[in-house]
Amino acid sequence: MVTKDKMPECDVATTVEIIGSKWKTLIIRDLMTGAKRNTELKHSLHGISQKVLTESLKSMIDDKIVERIDFKKNPPHVEYQLTELGNTLLPVIEAMKEWGQFYKKHLTI
Amino acid sequence: MVTKDKMPECDVATTVEIIGSKWKTLIIRDLMTGAKRNTELKHSLHGISQKVLTESLKSMIDDKIVERIDFKKNPPHVEYQLTELGNTLLPVIEAMKEWGQFYKKHLTI
Repeated sequence: MVTKDKMPECDVATTVEIIGSKWKTLIIRDLMTGAKRNTELKHSLHGISQKVLTESLKSMIDDKIVERIDFKKNPPHVEYQLTELGNTLLPVIEAMKEWGQFYKKHLTI
Repeated sequence: MVTKDKMPECDVATTVEIIGSKWKTLIIRDLMTGAKRNTELKHSLHGISQKVLTESLKSMIDDKIVERIDFKKNPPHVEYQLTELGNTLLPVIEAMKEWGQFYKKHLTI
């Protein structure tokens, strides 16, 4: 977790610090449509290892953009969802979505 | 370089494919203010190795978002700049900048 005093001065670098990995961005994309179980995330994030998924979720919980909901059931039922703060990332995800569409139209090969 | 047929179906994943690494996003941030030499990029991107910088630039050139300008001088003078396509990433960088500002205000520790 990056504390206030260790946060990069540059605001773009701050965002990269928090969501700058490929998988974290895609986890946020998936959680934008609502809370998900670990298995659901594993399924939609093709190629992610359980280790990376677990570490990414832990880091995002530490950074207060994701929260873990334990339904206290047997068998255990846990879901992950974006916090209020995590949901404010929508404009970043939207901008990425628009650019991805635009880029694909520009690709000739 | 990712060709059209290998591009992820999801538009967000497409953007992550092209700029999804920490350093590529920060290189784009730096090139948004104009062409830069390798040494300038190395200086502003604290902690990047020459290997990662060279590989990132090559990949971004392959993906047509950065171009290399050789001034054909002696000693050699080379600069890197965003292509027209690369410059269309501005909304993504702006969204990241705004979120970074917002996140830092929310950090209490």
